[in-house]
Amino acid sequence: MSFIESLTTAWARTQSLLCVGLDPEPSKFPGSLKNRSDAIFDFCRAIVDATGPYASSFKPQIAYFAAHRAEDQLEQLIAHIHETHPGLPVILDAKRGDIGSTAEQYAREAFERYDADAVTVNPYMGFDSIEPYLAHEGRGVIVLCRTSNPGGSDLQFLETQGRPLYQVVAQLAAEKWNAAGQLGLVVGATFPKEIEVVRGIVGEMPLLIPGIGAQGGDVEATVRAGRTAGGAGMLINSSRAIIYAGRDDDFASAAAQAAKKTRDTINLYR
Amino acid sequence: MSFIESLTTAWARTQSLLCVGLDPEPSKFPGSLKNRSDAIFDFCRAIVDATGPYASSFKPQIAYFAAHRAEDQLEQLIAHIHETHPGLPVILDAKRGDIGSTAEQYAREAFERYDADAVTVNPYMGFDSIEPYLAHEGRGVIVLCRTSNPGGSDLQFLETQGRPLYQVVAQLAAEKWNAAGQLGLVVGATFPKEIEVVRGIVGEMPLLIPGIGAQGGDVEATVRAGRTAGGAGMLINSSRAIIYAGRDDDFASAAAQAAKKTRDTINLYR
Repeated sequence: MSFIESLTTAWARTQSLLCVGLDPEPSKFPGSLKNRSDAIFDFCRAIVDATGPYASSFKPQIAYFAAHRAEDQLEQLIAHIHETHPGLPVILDAKRGDIGSTAEQYAREAFERYDADAVTVNPYMGFDSIEPYLAHEGRGVIVLCRTSNPGGSDLQFLETQGRPLYQVVAQLAAEKWNAAGQLGLVVGATFPKEIEVVRGIVGEMPLLIPGIGAQGGDVEATVRAGRTAGGAGMLINSSRAIIYAGRDDDFASAAAQAAKKTRDTINLYR
Repeated sequence: MSFIESLTTAWARTQSLLCVGLDPEPSKFPGSLKNRSDAIFDFCRAIVDATGPYASSFKPQIAYFAAHRAEDQLEQLIAHIHETHPGLPVILDAKRGDIGSTAEQYAREAFERYDADAVTVNPYMGFDSIEPYLAHEGRGVIVLCRTSNPGGSDLQFLETQGRPLYQVVAQLAAEKWNAAGQLGLVVGATFPKEIEVVRGIVGEMPLLIPGIGAQGGDVEATVRAGRTAGGAGMLINSSRAIIYAGRDDDFASAAAQAAKKTRDTINLYR
C-alpha cells in the first residue's frame, strides 16, 4: 500500500488527523529516564504506545536523534511503531535537500535504513533534488511550502510571478512534480489563510501542518482552512505540547490525555 | 581561531583554493576495500592523506555516511583530518534547514558531535533557521545561494524584487544575516556569470563553489568570476573527479595527482 493510501486508510480507521511529533530532548525527560543509554528510545516508545490510540501518524524529527548519536534508537523506534501500530505511517522529518546523486543517498537513508513511509524535503534546490525520493515507489515525499517559523517569511513570502514564493512552490508541486501522486506539502498552522490558499492550489494533496500547540497555531482556523471535502487531507502535527505535557513519571499518560484532547478538538471542526 | 580566519590562513599557507569533497560510495571502492566494516573510513582516510598536500579544506557529505549507517566513521574521519592536517577547515556538507529549536539540535550535531569547522545550510526557512548555528562562536555557516544542479533554477532563478531569488539570498546574507562575520555562500561553478554577480553583492565573503570536475564547471571562468582582490575568497570543491580518479588499488595516488592538477589549474587563473 502506498503512503497516500495508508494515510487515507489511517484517517478513516482512526478518525484522527493527529500526527504525533517525536522531538526527544533528554534534558526534558523525567528523572527515572535520565542517564540511561537507551533513554531516547524508551521515552519515545512510551509516548508512541500511550498516544497511538489517538493518532493517525507519527513524525520523528531526526535532528534530535543525531545530536545525541542516537541513530540506532531512531531505527529501533520506527521498527517499534511499524510493529505495534501497523498501518500508521511514519514521516521522517529530515528536511533534506541536495543534488540528485546526494539525494539518492538521503532517500536510501530515509526509506531503506529507517524504513520511513515518507520524508520531508526542502524545495530550494528544485525538482532534481526531489526526484530521487520518488524513485522509491509508494513512499511519500512532503515538500516544505509555507513553514510555521517567524523567518519563514524571509523567502517564502517574497513576491514572484505575482504571488508569494510559497504559492509558486505549491503550484510546482501540484502541477509538475507530482506525476506519481507521492507528494504532500508542509504548511504551518500559524498561517490559516495561507493553508486555505494552498488547499485551493493543490486539490486533495495531503498537507502536513505543524504549528499547533507550542507554536500557537489555532486549531479551528487550521482545520476549516485545510480540510478536504471528505473532512481529512491533513496531518496536523503537535510535538512539544503532547510529549512534554507531563514532566514527571506520569509523562506518558499526560501525553495520552493531551493527544486525545487535541484529536477531539480537531474533530470538532472537521 | 574562527572558521574565516582558519580559512584565510590556510589559503595563504597552502597556496591552494581546492576543497576536496568526500562523497564515499562503497560500490565504487577498489576491491581491496570491499566488504570491510570500516571501508568508508579507510577509503576517506587514504584520500585525505594523499590529497592533503594540495588542499586547503575538506568537505565530507554526510548523506554518504548516513545511507550506510556510518556516522561513527564520519566522526573518526573528521578527527583524523584535524589531527593530521591541523589548520585545514572541515566543512560538513549537510544542507540543514529547520525551525530554531530543531536547528539548535542540528548545530550540536555539526559542531559538537562532529567537530566540523563549518556546515552548509538551506535558506528556505529564513533567518531563524540559520541563527542557532551562529551561536556557536567562530564556526562557519555556508548558506545555499545558487546551486550547481539543473533544478537549481526552479526556485533560485525566479524573479523577485526585480532580481533572481538567489541574488536576494546573497543580499540577505551579506547585509542582514552576517552580523558576526561567520557566513559563506554556496554558488555553483556551472554558472560563472552568477558567481561574478554574487561576488559583487557580498564583498569578501567566502564562496563555496561546487561543480567543477564531474559536474562540468569551467575552472578558468569560475576563478576569474569568484576571486577576491587578494586572489582567494573561494573554496573550489571537487569530489568525484578527485576521489574516483583511480578505481583500483592506486586510487589514493590517482586522487593525489588529480588534486594537484586541479590546484595547479586553479592557480593559473588566480
